[in-house]
Amino acid sequence: MQSVLEYLAANEARFVEELCTYLRFPSISAQSDHRRDMRACADWLVEHCREMGLKARRHATSGHPLVTASTPRREGRAHFLVYGHYDVQPPDPLDQWHSPPFVPSIRNGAVYARGATDNKGQHFAHLKAVEAYLKTDTELPCDLTFVIEGEEEVGSEGLPGFLKKNRRGLACDAVVVSDTGMPSKKHPALTYALRGVAALEVTVRGPKADLHSGIYGGSVDNPAMVLSQILAQLREKRGRIAVPGFYEDVEQLSAHERRQFKRLPYNERAYKRLLGVPALFGEKGFTPIEQRSARPTLEINGLTSGYQGEGSKTIVPAQASAKITCRLVPNQSPRKITQLLKKHLKEICPSTVRLELEEGHGADPYLVSHTGSGAQAALAALEAAFGREPVILREGGSIPIVTEFKKILGADSLLLGLALPDDNLHSPNEKFDLDCLRGGARMSAHLWPRLSDAC
Amino acid sequence: MQSVLEYLAANEARFVEELCTYLRFPSISAQSDHRRDMRACADWLVEHCREMGLKARRHATSGHPLVTASTPRREGRAHFLVYGHYDVQPPDPLDQWHSPPFVPSIRNGAVYARGATDNKGQHFAHLKAVEAYLKTDTELPCDLTFVIEGEEEVGSEGLPGFLKKNRRGLACDAVVVSDTGMPSKKHPALTYALRGVAALEVTVRGPKADLHSGIYGGSVDNPAMVLSQILAQLREKRGRIAVPGFYEDVEQLSAHERRQFKRLPYNERAYKRLLGVPALFGEKGFTPIEQRSARPTLEINGLTSGYQGEGSKTIVPAQASAKITCRLVPNQSPRKITQLLKKHLKEICPSTVRLELEEGHGADPYLVSHTGSGAQAALAALEAAFGREPVILREGGSIPIVTEFKKILGADSLLLGLALPDDNLHSPNEKFDLDCLRGGARMSAHLWPRLSDAC
Repeated sequence: MQSVLEYLAANEARFVEELCTYLRFPSISAQSDHRRDMRACADWLVEHCREMGLKARRHATSGHPLVTASTPRREGRAHFLVYGHYDVQPPDPLDQWHSPPFVPSIRNGAVYARGATDNKGQHFAHLKAVEAYLKTDTELPCDLTFVIEGEEEVGSEGLPGFLKKNRRGLACDAVVVSDTGMPSKKHPALTYALRGVAALEVTVRGPKADLHSGIYGGSVDNPAMVLSQILAQLREKRGRIAVPGFYEDVEQLSAHERRQFKRLPYNERAYKRLLGVPALFGEKGFTPIEQRSARPTLEINGLTSGYQGEGSKTIVPAQASAKITCRLVPNQSPRKITQLLKKHLKEICPSTVRLELEEGHGADPYLVSHTGSGAQAALAALEAAFGREPVILREGGSIPIVTEFKKILGADSLLLGLALPDDNLHSPNEKFDLDCLRGGARMSAHLWPRLSDAC
Repeated sequence: MQSVLEYLAANEARFVEELCTYLRFPSISAQSDHRRDMRACADWLVEHCREMGLKARRHATSGHPLVTASTPRREGRAHFLVYGHYDVQPPDPLDQWHSPPFVPSIRNGAVYARGATDNKGQHFAHLKAVEAYLKTDTELPCDLTFVIEGEEEVGSEGLPGFLKKNRRGLACDAVVVSDTGMPSKKHPALTYALRGVAALEVTVRGPKADLHSGIYGGSVDNPAMVLSQILAQLREKRGRIAVPGFYEDVEQLSAHERRQFKRLPYNERAYKRLLGVPALFGEKGFTPIEQRSARPTLEINGLTSGYQGEGSKTIVPAQASAKITCRLVPNQSPRKITQLLKKHLKEICPSTVRLELEEGHGADPYLVSHTGSGAQAALAALEAAFGREPVILREGGSIPIVTEFKKILGADSLLLGLALPDDNLHSPNEKFDLDCLRGGARMSAHLWPRLSDAC
């Protein structure tokens, strides 16, 4: 291990240069005029992995190609996947960048470029750890396969098919994913839970056409008012969702988890300023950190009704609709929540209008043990690499690929995010801190012996 | 009078032909490429009035020209204005017309064309009554001035200026307006009250930008939910508006009025089918006819928030807004209602968001005595012309020009509408019933002696 860590330290400057080369590819998966850049980036990655000593190849998918790179498979050894994606978000708005998004710039100990933290820099740290093992002839205690896709920013549509087709070769003990965040450089983190999603569109239909509010108004119900009154009943004053059964399956937070969350850095004034709100609001009895990551929500994402242009139009609108998504926490089911919500809406909707409910996409919440042997191995690797006691995190969003790995390969994911809160992912001036590159590579080096022992 | 009525009967066919000529002008005030048609229509009208024996001219305004036509002014005679408008609504959607909108077609005893009932046919009936007086050398008991504008469908912006500039010459005892409706051919009608309007736009602002509902949702209030909860509180379950003081100034309906309204034709099933609603809804304790004409309302005319496209977008929207208009009944003041509404909204809005309130246009409600001498004269003329006991009506909409005549000239308006409920005004296949043209001309002939006596 010592020689691996020394190799990492001795070659830091070159790693940064190589990462800059990787970041120069405008691998924007959402824009079809970058199709060639996507392929060139995948080809560079394949070549780079081969030079490191990995067996690498490009795979065609229904969309952009996917790259795999692996160490030889050995009988009786643990096998882990490392997931990453080489595609990046579009860089717009360009005029807000301080340096061009695809001309990497080193400033204040960070590399600024589109894709730096999301996700090229993060999986690159893992690649360099493996390179250190290979180039120092240190025996890897496990077999590794990198799966680096090119469609994460556009929905990972090709990935499930690829996993299904290669189910046997990809069978593994766990998946390691560095595509989340850490609260600060002093707080290396293991993310052990993600929220799921349930989506529903609610449409209230009244008169067959917009009506003149002078001629008819007063004698007919107003769909926008009915919708408002229905939606208003979905949340109690103290922030609880008022749908019967909504909390039934929610796994309660343990005292240990709540103590761990208290260790996370949090400043209410700074958080309010970040969001730009006059006051925070959330479910009573929980801290903002718990509310946004470990508690389910019901959000109205959009409202549409009647006249929305300038000035006024005196109508009773024919219809009104709302887009709703719920964030779900471990043990809640998107299907069950959608059914409960539909049932409740039907019960509270008056007979003066017609109610239409359209189910949208669902995503299961995700939870792995934060006390199991895999998690302990990851926490130990984080502490060894960063020299700080790591924190455990729940994240409020969903990472659909994690659910796919579980469903198709039966493997849990260890989420070891290296992004800092100010890394501007999906925004102008995205960056990746060189301390996170350094710490990430060391963490990866420390991880494999510990994780192999845990399996 | 006998010779006047005989003249009207003898010349009916020619009147219909002349009306068809008038209807051939596509005098669409809203569309600038019809500016020449507007002028041509005004010129034709001036010429037609001159041929009838009136002193007519075209007046420039800030927008489309206005036409006046008058009998000579005589000392000591009553002077009445007859208001009308020669501009029409755009004819779209064209493919729903059974005959072209500007090629008048006579079918089922009616003339079909854009502008037939709104308003060319209606004021044309009055013109023909005066022609009958003039051509039969029957002395008119009063002086008359027709004021026929070209901007009613686009807000009558030039009319107040014209009235102010010609305040002296237009000074009059009353204004006669045929631009409203009658419930059926068996129910000639005097409209004696109109509702007013007060408009307010409500915007609820939360975070400074749309937020990722996974990362932040749960710890911050949702502006669309806040807006829904605020709006929901503005109306009680039984349909009453829940704004303190809202009903304070409402003049109660008299027993006589409510008895008169009971005479109006009404069929709940047909009304529900017309609107296309599963059930009617309105303020308890009042009939639908009263609810839509004699009771104040608060309507949400539009809702806007967050994502409104296809599918879903998991955001906490930065803001949500609603367009509200109240219909006001006699004695309510738009300014006062707006202030009450603003005060109430500020009181019920939580401190987790910022509330913005923007006042829109206001229009006073209108009421003339339905038992005074002017109304009695009008009712007698209606009965003489149509051979039926007339009804008295309140209309639910506003007619802003009526308020202008009152404010600028100090004159009350008698609203003697000739449109039938199925005349399709503002819709495809607009028509004007030839019985209404006939009855309207006779009503106008009967009106002037009675109205002159009443003043």
